[in-house]
Amino acid sequence: MAEQQVESARRGPGRPREERVTRAVLDAVVDLVAESGMGSLTMDAVAARAGVSKPAMYRRWSTKQDLIIAAAESRIGPLTVPDMGDFRAELRAVLTARMEAYRRPGVDRLLAGVIGSAAEAGSERGAYRAYTARVMAETRHLLERGVARGDVRPDVDVDAAATLVAASLVFRMVGEQRMPDEGLVESVVDLVGRAVAAPS
Amino acid sequence: MAEQQVESARRGPGRPREERVTRAVLDAVVDLVAESGMGSLTMDAVAARAGVSKPAMYRRWSTKQDLIIAAAESRIGPLTVPDMGDFRAELRAVLTARMEAYRRPGVDRLLAGVIGSAAEAGSERGAYRAYTARVMAETRHLLERGVARGDVRPDVDVDAAATLVAASLVFRMVGEQRMPDEGLVESVVDLVGRAVAAPS
Repeated sequence: MAEQQVESARRGPGRPREERVTRAVLDAVVDLVAESGMGSLTMDAVAARAGVSKPAMYRRWSTKQDLIIAAAESRIGPLTVPDMGDFRAELRAVLTARMEAYRRPGVDRLLAGVIGSAAEAGSERGAYRAYTARVMAETRHLLERGVARGDVRPDVDVDAAATLVAASLVFRMVGEQRMPDEGLVESVVDLVGRAVAAPS
Repeated sequence: MAEQQVESARRGPGRPREERVTRAVLDAVVDLVAESGMGSLTMDAVAARAGVSKPAMYRRWSTKQDLIIAAAESRIGPLTVPDMGDFRAELRAVLTARMEAYRRPGVDRLLAGVIGSAAEAGSERGAYRAYTARVMAETRHLLERGVARGDVRPDVDVDAAATLVAASLVFRMVGEQRMPDEGLVESVVDLVGRAVAAPS
């Protein structure tokens, strides 16, 4: 369902060869993390698995930190949800798309690894913060659209509500070490739906 | 406020020397992570900083993974909140105590590092899962007490609501890379309070 309704934002067209290289490298990152974890991820191993030269990789991603954020964004990226006339339905579409993406092999280790390495990245922390903001942007937009439409209360703290939405599935996965499922999605839709509902 | 109301669960009495060693080692872990991050944390560095022999450390924590979970638990551990007759007041007490603990130096890096290393720990992942469950236990208890008292609706999904509560401040810190503050605590109390409120 969510796949029909929710469109992942796509990168600009670029040249086909560029896209093939990008895709091969990011797939290699996710595959290697799924197999052996972040600890053994090196630029050499990624280049070898992707069949790409290291200079070609470094032209695109100058640090390993940039590379793993790009890999995370290739799996959990910005979304666009059309106006469905109902905040809960739109929230369900976002959370279902995220849940399906989280359940793909290696994504749990990759996101946990991105969190761990972001804390170590010093001045590069801004890159991860910016990624998180891109991922959360659609939920903020849905909340604001709901306020304009009238099914989300106008005094809602959009910042905090967007944090609750983004946090729930990620924490279930990397904190509780349980895979998010449809039951969690339905419960979060119900809880957040009640939390932000306009008075009827 | 929260400090007066909320009591951290304490370890058993033990021998005073044992406790001094435990505390010196866990303080050394937090200090080293605050200064240099998880990447450079070694059992040798911890032993040197704490002034403790490595065998004495290994008797207590057989792996680095055990040690960092123990360090996290020394800062973010189980809590006990007395019955205040009001779910929102109790939730505010839990979240305020957590927020204050998260804001101490090094705790953000430590928790992000624990998440990252848990994903790498293979068969040891159960230790982190068990720690998370201990940290979340009081929120589950508050929800169940609220149901019994009548200010939390009886059909609430305790599992999912506890995830929202635990997730919000942690994700703000390690995902959004912003420090949780009193404003976030108040908004989460309001959002979760509405989400779980019994019909009036």
